[in-house]
Amino acid sequence: MTPETRRPGRRPGSADTRGEILTAARRVFAEKGFDKATVRGIAREAKVDPALVHHYFDTKEGMFAAAMQLPITPHDVIPLLVDGPREEIGERLVRLLLRVTASPETREPMVALIRSAMTNEQAAAMFREFISNALLYQVAERLQVPHLRIEAAFAQMFGVVMARYVIKLEPMASASHDELVEILAPTVQRYFTG
Amino acid sequence: MTPETRRPGRRPGSADTRGEILTAARRVFAEKGFDKATVRGIAREAKVDPALVHHYFDTKEGMFAAAMQLPITPHDVIPLLVDGPREEIGERLVRLLLRVTASPETREPMVALIRSAMTNEQAAAMFREFISNALLYQVAERLQVPHLRIEAAFAQMFGVVMARYVIKLEPMASASHDELVEILAPTVQRYFTG
Repeated sequence: MTPETRRPGRRPGSADTRGEILTAARRVFAEKGFDKATVRGIAREAKVDPALVHHYFDTKEGMFAAAMQLPITPHDVIPLLVDGPREEIGERLVRLLLRVTASPETREPMVALIRSAMTNEQAAAMFREFISNALLYQVAERLQVPHLRIEAAFAQMFGVVMARYVIKLEPMASASHDELVEILAPTVQRYFTG
Repeated sequence: MTPETRRPGRRPGSADTRGEILTAARRVFAEKGFDKATVRGIAREAKVDPALVHHYFDTKEGMFAAAMQLPITPHDVIPLLVDGPREEIGERLVRLLLRVTASPETREPMVALIRSAMTNEQAAAMFREFISNALLYQVAERLQVPHLRIEAAFAQMFGVVMARYVIKLEPMASASHDELVEILAPTVQRYFTG
């Protein structure tokens, strides 16, 4: 930020305020977890009016995604999964995840969140609550699929992202999207349609 | 170790020598990765005769498993997978992994190895080479299954272990072995039998 754009104090609508809300959000999510964090609490931490938080971020999910710099929110993902033919949900989910993780800019924030969840109990609780309540449970409810099956599908795709981009197992790291869809889509499909 | 059992200097057969070989092995594996580490190099690092290393550890795989305190070696796992009816390999693999990860004493060293692979590039290379060459490629060769399919099965079970024990997603964290076998065994089976 250049001296010209940096202003003292806070104004509604300045980039500054948005950044300060996100900094406060990261602190509150890390401390309280996803479930117990509230828009009101984050506004208090950022010393702004809750209405301003709502102005920038529609939902707590959206604020979490922005705070963690995630490339997609459950709000984007859920319709992509739930809408469209049920018999193609496996392929839709696999292609979506491969697309989102293909470029380092969108992948790295997700991997960073997972890394901290693997090594820090507080970060694990935050990740668990976010993934469960904002994503997996929503999908399970909307599609009327048992939660354990949604988690099995999550585990498959989580493992693929780790194997492909973090452990870099070959041939998985170099496989094309089509090759991976061919192998993985039937697994995910089976979890969703039994 | 009590003062009575702790002896100065090294003797073949003392608990000391074995421990020193393992310390040297951890150092060499971390530095060179699994592929480039040799029994000879580890013996040199531990300042013992290579024959002594072979006396304690049959193979490089066995030495790696002991150095990382892994509860099972590929030498144990591969026959369990490869022997027995091919149409039950899904269930055998899922049950084996659930059994091995059920108690914290056997699970923690595996999780520790994965954690360091997730956060450290050198540890990731070591883990990748070990998993690929000592386990996944061996299984792919013996069963004549494409490598990518073996890696998809690995990714599924890796994700399950992370979701169940590290992220602790519910209901997966509390699910019984039978519930998990029912959901996961068909996936693994499909990867192995197409």
